[in-house]
Amino acid sequence: MKDHPFLPENFLLTTDWARTLYFEHAAPQPIFDYHCHLPPDQIASNRQFENLFQIWLAGDHYKWRAMRSNGINEDLVTGDQTSDYDKFLAYARTVPRTLRNPLYHWSHLELRRYFGIDLVINEASAPKIWELANEKLRAPEFTTQGILRKNRVNVVCTTDDPVDSLEHHIAIQKSGLPTRVHPTFRPDKAMTVHAPAVFNTWCDQLAAASGVEVRDLATLLEAIDKRHAFFHSLGGRLSDHGLECIPDTECTETAAAAIFDAARAGKAAGPDETARFTMFMMLFLGRLDAKRGWTKQLHLGALRNNNTRLLQRLGADAGVDSIGDFPQARGLARYLDRLDSTGELPKTVLYNLNPADNYVFATMIGNVQDDLAPGKIQFGSGWWFLDQKEGMEWQLNALSQLGLLSRFVGMLTDSRSFMSYVRHEYFRRILCSQIGADVEAGLIPADRALVGGMIEDICYQNALRYFGLEAGTL
Amino acid sequence: MKDHPFLPENFLLTTDWARTLYFEHAAPQPIFDYHCHLPPDQIASNRQFENLFQIWLAGDHYKWRAMRSNGINEDLVTGDQTSDYDKFLAYARTVPRTLRNPLYHWSHLELRRYFGIDLVINEASAPKIWELANEKLRAPEFTTQGILRKNRVNVVCTTDDPVDSLEHHIAIQKSGLPTRVHPTFRPDKAMTVHAPAVFNTWCDQLAAASGVEVRDLATLLEAIDKRHAFFHSLGGRLSDHGLECIPDTECTETAAAAIFDAARAGKAAGPDETARFTMFMMLFLGRLDAKRGWTKQLHLGALRNNNTRLLQRLGADAGVDSIGDFPQARGLARYLDRLDSTGELPKTVLYNLNPADNYVFATMIGNVQDDLAPGKIQFGSGWWFLDQKEGMEWQLNALSQLGLLSRFVGMLTDSRSFMSYVRHEYFRRILCSQIGADVEAGLIPADRALVGGMIEDICYQNALRYFGLEAGTL
Amino acid sequence: MKDHPFLPENFLLTTDWARTLYFEHAAPQPIFDYHCHLPPDQIASNRQFENLFQIWLAGDHYKWRAMRSNGINEDLVTGDQTSDYDKFLAYARTVPRTLRNPLYHWSHLELRRYFGIDLVINEASAPKIWELANEKLRAPEFTTQGILRKNRVNVVCTTDDPVDSLEHHIAIQKSGLPTRVHPTFRPDKAMTVHAPAVFNTWCDQLAAASGVEVRDLATLLEAIDKRHAFFHSLGGRLSDHGLECIPDTECTETAAAAIFDAARAGKAAGPDETARFTMFMMLFLGRLDAKRGWTKQLHLGALRNNNTRLLQRLGADAGVDSIGDFPQARGLARYLDRLDSTGELPKTVLYNLNPADNYVFATMIGNVQDDLAPGKIQFGSGWWFLDQKEGMEWQLNALSQLGLLSRFVGMLTDSRSFMSYVRHEYFRRILCSQIGADVEAGLIPADRALVGGMIEDICYQNALRYFGLEAGTL
Repeated sequence: MKDHPFLPENFLLTTDWARTLYFEHAAPQPIFDYHCHLPPDQIASNRQFENLFQIWLAGDHYKWRAMRSNGINEDLVTGDQTSDYDKFLAYARTVPRTLRNPLYHWSHLELRRYFGIDLVINEASAPKIWELANEKLRAPEFTTQGILRKNRVNVVCTTDDPVDSLEHHIAIQKSGLPTRVHPTFRPDKAMTVHAPAVFNTWCDQLAAASGVEVRDLATLLEAIDKRHAFFHSLGGRLSDHGLECIPDTECTETAAAAIFDAARAGKAAGPDETARFTMFMMLFLGRLDAKRGWTKQLHLGALRNNNTRLLQRLGADAGVDSIGDFPQARGLARYLDRLDSTGELPKTVLYNLNPADNYVFATMIGNVQDDLAPGKIQFGSGWWFLDQKEGMEWQLNALSQLGLLSRFVGMLTDSRSFMSYVRHEYFRRILCSQIGADVEAGLIPADRALVGGMIEDICYQNALRYFGLEAGTL
Repeated sequence: MKDHPFLPENFLLTTDWARTLYFEHAAPQPIFDYHCHLPPDQIASNRQFENLFQIWLAGDHYKWRAMRSNGINEDLVTGDQTSDYDKFLAYARTVPRTLRNPLYHWSHLELRRYFGIDLVINEASAPKIWELANEKLRAPEFTTQGILRKNRVNVVCTTDDPVDSLEHHIAIQKSGLPTRVHPTFRPDKAMTVHAPAVFNTWCDQLAAASGVEVRDLATLLEAIDKRHAFFHSLGGRLSDHGLECIPDTECTETAAAAIFDAARAGKAAGPDETARFTMFMMLFLGRLDAKRGWTKQLHLGALRNNNTRLLQRLGADAGVDSIGDFPQARGLARYLDRLDSTGELPKTVLYNLNPADNYVFATMIGNVQDDLAPGKIQFGSGWWFLDQKEGMEWQLNALSQLGLLSRFVGMLTDSRSFMSYVRHEYFRRILCSQIGADVEAGLIPADRALVGGMIEDICYQNALRYFGLEAGTL
Repeated sequence: MKDHPFLPENFLLTTDWARTLYFEHAAPQPIFDYHCHLPPDQIASNRQFENLFQIWLAGDHYKWRAMRSNGINEDLVTGDQTSDYDKFLAYARTVPRTLRNPLYHWSHLELRRYFGIDLVINEASAPKIWELANEKLRAPEFTTQGILRKNRVNVVCTTDDPVDSLEHHIAIQKSGLPTRVHPTFRPDKAMTVHAPAVFNTWCDQLAAASGVEVRDLATLLEAIDKRHAFFHSLGGRLSDHGLECIPDTECTETAAAAIFDAARAGKAAGPDETARFTMFMMLFLGRLDAKRGWTKQLHLGALRNNNTRLLQRLGADAGVDSIGDFPQARGLARYLDRLDSTGELPKTVLYNLNPADNYVFATMIGNVQDDLAPGKIQFGSGWWFLDQKEGMEWQLNALSQLGLLSRFVGMLTDSRSFMSYVRHEYFRRILCSQIGADVEAGLIPADRALVGGMIEDICYQNALRYFGLEAGTL
């Protein structure tokens, strides 16, 4: 049989046009990572990593999840009595079992692009990989800041609680780092009236951070507005929310105030009250974003914390979340319409986790577009479980068939890891593969300016224009 | 790189078999447009269009929607203070931004097939396109009737309210037009008990049209039956309904009568009452269709009027609808079963708007088939947002895997525009592409009579046999 | 045009690698049919079939459904006043109308692989097919046991009620048949508190079979446990459940006992009570499986008995079921988590009927994996309506992208027919086609040991290791 090299230079690029578009239009673009979960303190301190486990596995719940599915004991996944090397070996043993999973590609690309290691990963090659990677990790350029520079990351938007002091963001800005690192306002805890212990702790932190005593609904809103302004003053132009769905409900200010008072007094709100309070707050927060010209992000559809055993052992974000099947359409449509009807709908990016709802989301955005910006309402890139080949293809196709792909703000990492920038390469190859195939099938004009320009827009330029964020110079 | 012409003669036809099937079996068939929203008055009056904007953009909410997504101000989309040419230019500027959207193909095919203009559409080519098209539009054959003739449209079924006088249909029939134009009975307003103002106006119109005083449920049903008979006398053999979903509920005649009485007295029905009244009426209407040998169409799954601002400015059907995620299976199954269990289930076409439900619909039709007609219950063609390449492929594949594609009644335009007949070409190419690929993969016998016959059936002959409508002679 | 033979030796195998993987790794594996509905009495009695209708059509509701969709009168589908030959002819007439439906491939493969008949099936070839097949059916090796031997079926797991005596399984084991035939514990009737007549009859049968008087909830559980142990003693290691969805609810033992008492007294439980009783029983049954090291199967998502007319004429499983759209995620997540949280979650296979939920299921399994077994929680093979080309491709892709395909226990027949073993060939070709294409695209290393080993695992070896069932020696 013919020779078939693994992940060759042209992988995923199946046509001449795909290769031209990728190498001449996509790859030269810097990275605009407008949503991620990188820890700002590790950027500020310019952390250097002790070993391959620390940079590659220690915080990556995707990899933990694969190891558990492979029958690996939890001690070798996240146990603190187990050596870094043993956990690394357990992952290396798992990698050959991930064939066809995005982890197989990500893991190999990460070793290749970061360390120049092109070994096939398995238990046999593991010792050599450990040795080679750890040697590289000792080089002075292998710090968090060095990684951002090497990957030409011009913008990073982290994900931050409104009560956060943003001290690390301030430090980074003062450092003159060529990557611009902006905070993102994520007030999920402002809706936790069903869990008064969480809610009240947060309200107290909010009061401390804002200097506003949070004693009723009005002062809650005032304090949130102050923090929003503070994020704005540091360059923040994005908010973000993680919700199962936008509830299809209504809530007066009086009702919201009563729910607030009860929660502050330690009485948990029921499901209906929580839904109504959520809607009230989301409308308020939408207007805040509109007022300051921000973009709102909605991450919808996750069913979280489905393993009580591991939640208690490891906390949230431990790789035990999955995709929900919530009703999305009506509540989301009404939410957008209410903000639009008073001229207070901000630019908005809708991220959908259940691919069965892709068409609901891709048509939803078309309902409330206007001339504030081209593609004002965006159908966001394939997210979490959808951040892989077929997930990205579906999102791109849905957006193409039902909206304007040309106005898409493109890819983000959404990652907790500094090694995830290969996901941009992956996305760009898939994008160019689709577009290139269309050109060669005669479905798109073979016009380099038109098509190459669209690729450049989606890879970088649209995001630069759309978000109004200051960008770096890499 | 090799030359790749845009939309060449063989576009979408990727195999030899696909080309043979298309050019020798599909393309020669006339068009049987059994569902559309063409205005019968414009056919009766044989309207000639003033300019390209009037025929191409004035009534096309697909194009408006794309323009808004491109950040075009509403005044340039639908504003009546803006010139036709300026709105045309705004659309021409938008077209290059619709790459990969069906509008990009439709727009180019419309200009090519109707006007012989094969320019790539953009702001630079716009003046020339405007000039060329407007010149053609002055030709005597460029009337509504001329367009039907040129496209060999043998049947058109419009969509009409039961209270409509059908005067234009009568005029068309008297005119000897070679296209047969039939009315379709669409009694959506008969279910609007949640909106007494709408409901009562309609009941009064119904009384006037039928000569039956609508004073209680019994006379409502009697009046509807009379109009149904009137539509029948003019050749109508189709009814149609637009619903979010068939409610999973029951309703006695007594309960329906009480809901009717309350609505007639100006009291709006609540959601449960509306659902029950809807079920009662749908059962009645199903029996009517069965009694006269008609076919019932159900258009399910749209979430409508999601932009209050534009609804107030432009009214319904303004391009601000989207795809819903309603529970479809149980209510629909029970509805079909109830009619079937008394032998009163008419031929039925189910149109689904949310592709996530394709498999629900494609298996639903198999539950209640019988020997009234082959393919008695149909899974209708990709509709509205699904009337595009992947939407049509999914519908064809779902029907193929789960039912009998060979018995499919095929494509319709569902359009408000006289320029939409290119959608039949598009559909036929996609159909032949799929079938041709299967033949060349050895998955279907390479038997011209068998496979070519199936193509001819789906493109025209099945519809001709199935609906029992008189056809024209083009 | 070039010659395109129908279903050639390499059909579905589109790359060199696909062909190598199929012929050298997949095809040599025996069959491990861990879930089917074969009647054990027909195996025990080593039934010989009277004619082609009896073995091929008499019990196959897939084929009945296609005939009805083709407009065939029910008397020619299932009528007992119609000759076997006439019903066979009616099916032969239908086959050409099933182009692109899996029945077209299955029917041809069944005739080829079982009888060596490679005629294209239609009305003209029907008499010859009838004659040739019936001649073969008279051969001594054409018995149920001969068919298992010829297809190298090493394991068959039937589907059995807990009250079943398993006399046929005992007889088969004593016969020394080289195929091991195991019972599967399917206690669906234990949840039928909404239908006291069914429930009480079943409880009485259970009492008789177990020797435990079923007079309250405690004795019900005791009796079920005894039957579970009895199945275990005969080699059973699997349970199975058919449910619309796992209800998202809770139920105390006291509440369950009250619902039981009411049902035993003839009072039907309402929907909420039925849901709660179901959850209580499912938790109990899950713990039983965990206790004995079994694997639990959940078949979720069917909407059954949608045709009252045919249900009354033919009973259940008559081809009038379809795909539902039930909320699946939350109830299923909680069910798995509750069992996991006490260390009582058995190995589990989740079968999903609505492909829109594939991603929900494929991510669900990842929440509760542990080191009891690699791939402890499985996303089961495409089931029923999904047991076809695109259905299998979607399941394989979803599992690949979101879990570990390499740990997949692979295909089963789920069939009532002895002629369904060609479905394994079909599945294996599709699997090898996907993997082969990935190798040739450079997305998987071209490593025969790695990739060929994975194919062998999925086709047989994983199931052998995973289920802990004794296998035959074919």
